[in-house]
Amino acid sequence: MSLANTPKPPYYAVIFSSIRLEGNQDEYIQMALKMERLAKKQNGFLGIESAREEIGLTVSYWKDLKSIKEWKEQIDHQLAQKLGKEKWYNYYHTRIALVERDYRFSTT
Amino acid sequence: MSLANTPKPPYYAVIFSSIRLEGNQDEYIQMALKMERLAKKQNGFLGIESAREEIGLTVSYWKDLKSIKEWKEQIDHQLAQKLGKEKWYNYYHTRIALVERDYRFSTT
Repeated sequence: MSLANTPKPPYYAVIFSSIRLEGNQDEYIQMALKMERLAKKQNGFLGIESAREEIGLTVSYWKDLKSIKEWKEQIDHQLAQKLGKEKWYNYYHTRIALVERDYRFSTT
Repeated sequence: MSLANTPKPPYYAVIFSSIRLEGNQDEYIQMALKMERLAKKQNGFLGIESAREEIGLTVSYWKDLKSIKEWKEQIDHQLAQKLGKEKWYNYYHTRIALVERDYRFSTT
């Protein structure tokens, strides 16, 4: 996992904050990796960043609302969303946000 | 760290993605905790979520751009930003985003 190299704003961010249920760890990780691979093939995908400690945060970046809608409705992703509710998440919160500006810092 | 219980959109998210330099770990954690305590006292603060693995993600939520600007200019936070560039971060990317809509799922 590296940082997403997104273009100049405006574009969209989907902020997915979650608390996992215990168990099904291997299955969950496999599905998360599969979803990341699939998302990268979607039209309008700009990048993804993810980290988990007590809570999980995944932020994916998208060209526009249309590309977010298409990803939400993608058939394998629909199954993952269903399994997420049934088996993997105790709680989650999804926020759709318009990135208006950004700034970067690098030592190199 | 729990999930942020934010109000109904619209409001703002500051997405802070980072890669740490090695070393100064204790000092960094103390400062991060101090900044979290201070942010919670700021006008317009709505919540914060954070996780770190290979990369760090911190998303803080704010009422409006004015409250984000005031937090950016808060004097102790200014020092932390300076130290961040000098000692703690190899790379970071800050995005200011308008949360337009959200949805939640809970098992309880």
